[in-house]
Amino acid sequence: MPLIYLANMTDRFYRIPAFIGLILSLSTSALAQQTGFRWELIAPGVWKSVVGASDKITPLAVAEINPRLDGLKKLGEPTFPNVLTGSTYQQTDGKTYLHFPLQKGEQLFGLGLNFKSVQQRGSIKTLHVDHYNGKDNGRTHAPVPFYVSSRGYGVLINSARYITVYAGTGVRTDSKDMPPEQNRNTQRDWSAQPYSDAVEMVVPAPGTEVYVFAGNNPMEVVQRYNLYCGGGTLPPKWGLGFTHRTPTLFTDEQVLTEVADFEAKGYPLSFVGLEPGWQSHAYPNSFVWDSTRFPKPKLFLDRLLQKNIRANLWINPYVSSHSPIFKDVLPYTGSHLVWVGRVPDFTMAPARNLYKDLFTKQHLSIGISGYKVDEVDGYDNWLWPDVATFPSGLSAEQMRQIYGLQVQKMTDTWFRQRNQRTYGLVRGSNAGSSALPYVIYNDYYDHRDFITALCTSSFIGVLWTPEARSSKTSEEWLRRMQSVCFSPMAMLNAWADGTKPWTFPDVAQDVKDVMLLRMQLLPYLYTTFAQYHFEGKPPIRAMNLVEGFSFDTKTTEGQLNSTENPYAIAARKDLSDQFMVGDFLLVAPMFAGSTTRKVVLPPGKWYDFYTGKLVGEAKVIEITPGLSKIPLFVKEGGIIPMIPPVLHTPVNEEKLPLTIRHYGKSETSWALYDDDGETFDYERSTYSWTRLAVKKNKKGELAGTWSPARNAAFHYTTATWEYMTP
Amino acid sequence: MPLIYLANMTDRFYRIPAFIGLILSLSTSALAQQTGFRWELIAPGVWKSVVGASDKITPLAVAEINPRLDGLKKLGEPTFPNVLTGSTYQQTDGKTYLHFPLQKGEQLFGLGLNFKSVQQRGSIKTLHVDHYNGKDNGRTHAPVPFYVSSRGYGVLINSARYITVYAGTGVRTDSKDMPPEQNRNTQRDWSAQPYSDAVEMVVPAPGTEVYVFAGNNPMEVVQRYNLYCGGGTLPPKWGLGFTHRTPTLFTDEQVLTEVADFEAKGYPLSFVGLEPGWQSHAYPNSFVWDSTRFPKPKLFLDRLLQKNIRANLWINPYVSSHSPIFKDVLPYTGSHLVWVGRVPDFTMAPARNLYKDLFTKQHLSIGISGYKVDEVDGYDNWLWPDVATFPSGLSAEQMRQIYGLQVQKMTDTWFRQRNQRTYGLVRGSNAGSSALPYVIYNDYYDHRDFITALCTSSFIGVLWTPEARSSKTSEEWLRRMQSVCFSPMAMLNAWADGTKPWTFPDVAQDVKDVMLLRMQLLPYLYTTFAQYHFEGKPPIRAMNLVEGFSFDTKTTEGQLNSTENPYAIAARKDLSDQFMVGDFLLVAPMFAGSTTRKVVLPPGKWYDFYTGKLVGEAKVIEITPGLSKIPLFVKEGGIIPMIPPVLHTPVNEEKLPLTIRHYGKSETSWALYDDDGETFDYERSTYSWTRLAVKKNKKGELAGTWSPARNAAFHYTTATWEYMTP
Repeated sequence: MPLIYLANMTDRFYRIPAFIGLILSLSTSALAQQTGFRWELIAPGVWKSVVGASDKITPLAVAEINPRLDGLKKLGEPTFPNVLTGSTYQQTDGKTYLHFPLQKGEQLFGLGLNFKSVQQRGSIKTLHVDHYNGKDNGRTHAPVPFYVSSRGYGVLINSARYITVYAGTGVRTDSKDMPPEQNRNTQRDWSAQPYSDAVEMVVPAPGTEVYVFAGNNPMEVVQRYNLYCGGGTLPPKWGLGFTHRTPTLFTDEQVLTEVADFEAKGYPLSFVGLEPGWQSHAYPNSFVWDSTRFPKPKLFLDRLLQKNIRANLWINPYVSSHSPIFKDVLPYTGSHLVWVGRVPDFTMAPARNLYKDLFTKQHLSIGISGYKVDEVDGYDNWLWPDVATFPSGLSAEQMRQIYGLQVQKMTDTWFRQRNQRTYGLVRGSNAGSSALPYVIYNDYYDHRDFITALCTSSFIGVLWTPEARSSKTSEEWLRRMQSVCFSPMAMLNAWADGTKPWTFPDVAQDVKDVMLLRMQLLPYLYTTFAQYHFEGKPPIRAMNLVEGFSFDTKTTEGQLNSTENPYAIAARKDLSDQFMVGDFLLVAPMFAGSTTRKVVLPPGKWYDFYTGKLVGEAKVIEITPGLSKIPLFVKEGGIIPMIPPVLHTPVNEEKLPLTIRHYGKSETSWALYDDDGETFDYERSTYSWTRLAVKKNKKGELAGTWSPARNAAFHYTTATWEYMTP
Repeated sequence: MPLIYLANMTDRFYRIPAFIGLILSLSTSALAQQTGFRWELIAPGVWKSVVGASDKITPLAVAEINPRLDGLKKLGEPTFPNVLTGSTYQQTDGKTYLHFPLQKGEQLFGLGLNFKSVQQRGSIKTLHVDHYNGKDNGRTHAPVPFYVSSRGYGVLINSARYITVYAGTGVRTDSKDMPPEQNRNTQRDWSAQPYSDAVEMVVPAPGTEVYVFAGNNPMEVVQRYNLYCGGGTLPPKWGLGFTHRTPTLFTDEQVLTEVADFEAKGYPLSFVGLEPGWQSHAYPNSFVWDSTRFPKPKLFLDRLLQKNIRANLWINPYVSSHSPIFKDVLPYTGSHLVWVGRVPDFTMAPARNLYKDLFTKQHLSIGISGYKVDEVDGYDNWLWPDVATFPSGLSAEQMRQIYGLQVQKMTDTWFRQRNQRTYGLVRGSNAGSSALPYVIYNDYYDHRDFITALCTSSFIGVLWTPEARSSKTSEEWLRRMQSVCFSPMAMLNAWADGTKPWTFPDVAQDVKDVMLLRMQLLPYLYTTFAQYHFEGKPPIRAMNLVEGFSFDTKTTEGQLNSTENPYAIAARKDLSDQFMVGDFLLVAPMFAGSTTRKVVLPPGKWYDFYTGKLVGEAKVIEITPGLSKIPLFVKEGGIIPMIPPVLHTPVNEEKLPLTIRHYGKSETSWALYDDDGETFDYERSTYSWTRLAVKKNKKGELAGTWSPARNAAFHYTTATWEYMTP
């Protein structure tokens, strides 16, 4: 009984006959009625299916996504992914079961912010917002129910439930690729995990929404996902500078002294973070300034701003009886306490408005630039239990899944209404967050796993910072600070023990060098974020998102154990310790205790960032980079625009000269983005794209040209070209 | 609107007006309607409440429990536990939330077979049958939804769902013992885990059954629970001997040679276990003998039995296409495969009958004594996913929670119908299993945690064996074998690498000594199991179950950090490395790498088992026991009946002399149990209790007497008294 859905085309969302539903029935069970999805095309390359009674409160609804149809149209109008043709669902026992076929050799990415693994086929997870605790089991800060296939499609389950995902583990009796039955007694190749040809999920609710994103490769799928979610966030320029969080009980004067120290010692700083001690009462929170430590907060913030330094405030959302909004917000709080604080139900407008009024008056109106939103993730021992109830009627489970997302959306709206961009920190997120100006952090603090999280963040529309806090050795300190400087937020988070960039004297200069390099790279980084916004390309990119870095299973299966063919290695081995920043820059962090490492170079020639020398092409290299620098490689034709090593992010009025590096021997071009760096005017076309091009002249010499925009949204004076490759 | 339930008294179950329901409503939420339970007295000291639409398939239903009203009546008729007066439930979002109050200082035990912790207040678990994987998070082999309070009551949730338990962690806004709001900025005693005054649970189903068990102390609660579940299992006598599992691909002759080795070297052995290689096809399973390795299975079993050795067969339930029942059982199997084998739905009689017929013909009728039921627990990667469906309509979740229990019940029934007791191994269980003749095992293999599991098993009506497999050193081997000999099943499980009791020559004699000591203790052990059956007292007992070992919070709170008062220590510190076997024997295992350990002695005098010397009274002692022996202590007035060090469990026809040890200086008496050791005739009163008494004569000297039963259910010829304490 095939079903075809016919609908009208509209400007915003258009619908065309899309896909033929399937109804299968299992031979083994009368109850096991599997139904084909009714897919509805809702944007170019994006399909949706509503199954049963879907929840009203979903991640995409909470994020109030505003799809970028312009960007989606530019990506083309692909057909529905073939692989998903046999997808089905079942409704039973108050739950919804989902079934999505898999092909041999297919790899899966995504399924939340994972810290141990990039490739997810073969894993089982119950997606649950929580502090990450050492296992990629679904409990993580952003358990986004979205996976991306190496075959070029993605599946999103838009549900705020604890979804259990079997990502290619179960074997059905009606499997199309049935693994052979083996005798463990006699067959040595008996497998404990027989081949599975499907992703299956339990959504513990009577219905759900399912989205499918098409693409020619994983990057296109991720682009469509991010564009559908509104395009990636474009932080204010100061957000891409360096940030430091001061000890929790510091006074205004102590903070100002510390800021002055950074300047005096020549370490860059763009914004500082104040920890709970800024409040009169914290854990639970009053949300008002402590008058002993911060008697004149506006004056304090003005003094910071005079130095071109913004301030960010730590909060968690749980309200103290000492807060001025306590009595008013009570009717809009849940049945359970968190650290004896009330838990606001932010799905209710009165709760949001009370916070908006207080926060606007106390913080935004006097210059606060953003928030660090703590403890919206877990642990279970700290947050409300799943038996908690909320006045809106939302269940505790759903509240847990959307709480961090909701606080991001709420606070972003406050700033947006002031035409002021914010950029903050958060510990809990979910699907639909691409456009939200928040970076996820935690206190798990494993350097290697922090880098894996940078990789995995790139599939699911979230940003992650591998913050530095403290270290046992100067080597570790330097290695961590080097990684921090190649992440969405370059953060030193030493509020507890007060470590400074210069705490380890023997590496203090090296730390300064990499922090200043971060500042020099701002034009490149800002353009990379603009790509996130306008094209959906994540700023940090797992290697699996690199175009031309194939995952062809034929190659893989034919050449196991080969160290010569990086495709095979990349496909078989989790490539989790290196990543791309933007289009050209490959970052291969070093970890304390190691002096050498392997780097997998995708197809095309790759050059050393510092020397411009060729290092290899489509192969695995072993490097011994020395302590002082983080290994960086640039793709053939790479263009890296840089400014001088400034101590603060340039303000809108400031114009600087550019040095534009070119790597390799090829002709190339690349577009440099700019805007005012502070407001949302770029959403109203007040921005500039400047083409940077390198061509060969008649003598065969490389020559760079640019056509700089001549509007207020362009801040560079001159371009000096450097042809790095000898 | 209080509700009172009136009902009739019957012989079997009787009902009286029991308890006044409460209806509370939360100030913060219109939806948060909490309703008081309607408790119905269903047996002395046992209450039940059915909430909403309870599932038909529950653990107690699957176990087909047959409450021992005789034993329950003997325990008296207590009133409903006061502490639970304010218990409530809520139904929302298709789930059932449960709320049970807690008092200050109250401790909680149970909530599954835990390996790291005995006391559970403050923990959060989602109870889910699974292989234990290093965290007491609810995923374990027997996630029994039952907790026992130090205040003398127990709560059982009879549901085959993944229940989430907040065992004293959440804080409600309407808490009666509200913790103070603190300011983390200024108050050093700020607590990350504020005081919680309730156990709360989510049963993810529209209803459930709740049982309450009363008691004057935790032991009485456990007794009521076990008696209500039918009384503890009484194994056949051979089940309490020593068992060894032979390498998986051994032939019949190799097994017989190995058995002969035990005899020749003087190591006891009562039954052997055959691993997957006995089958023609395994993983998935044919369930029929491999004709190359076991050409004449009946002859093989007869030859074993001539040596007084039983045989146990490894299985998992997943059926191969090579099994004779494959085609017939297909309609009764689930939607997913396990190791490419079909998964029978044993809730359906045709599936059970097919297995019964095949197993009876192939195994039981030719002398097989029992099974080792593997892989009915987890991991998720191996078993059916939660999206699986079954022909009976039972959900995958429920199937997972009851599968091991169902196989235990099914196989026990087969043996019971032959009037033959079985005793086997299983990896998955749940509530209601007290009467089932199975011991849980796994391959987690941490010696210390194995001992903790012995402690935690005692609260939830399951048996656990800390099997020995292999060891890195002879010290570890000896320490593990010593522990094994003081557990419900003394098992060497070295099918993989073939370790033998004598593998480490330097400890081979010590290993033999403790194995023979196990055999000598059989009269004591068998009586201990009879107590389990008739009185509900578990054979292995956590120290928290020792009568007089108080958990008075006043004592606890007043004397923190004291090493002089074991009550305080026991209450604050998890006492997880020592346990009782039966009424008198305190076992304090040693672990490789340690030469000393602390032992907490409850009130009353305690004596060294080997020397009879006084070691202390109600205090913590530090011992340095040497390598050769496991530290054992006997309570004042302890009576330990022993037989000679036999190599096999005595058969029914065999009669042996007793040596009866007495410890301490007190007059005392104790009842020794006996029966035929093989059949269920003891359920029809064919058993004996023999009073052993020690009194002081006129000179003040101790003198033992006994009044031996003179029926066929008594197997001891003479009694020699040994007054151990000098």
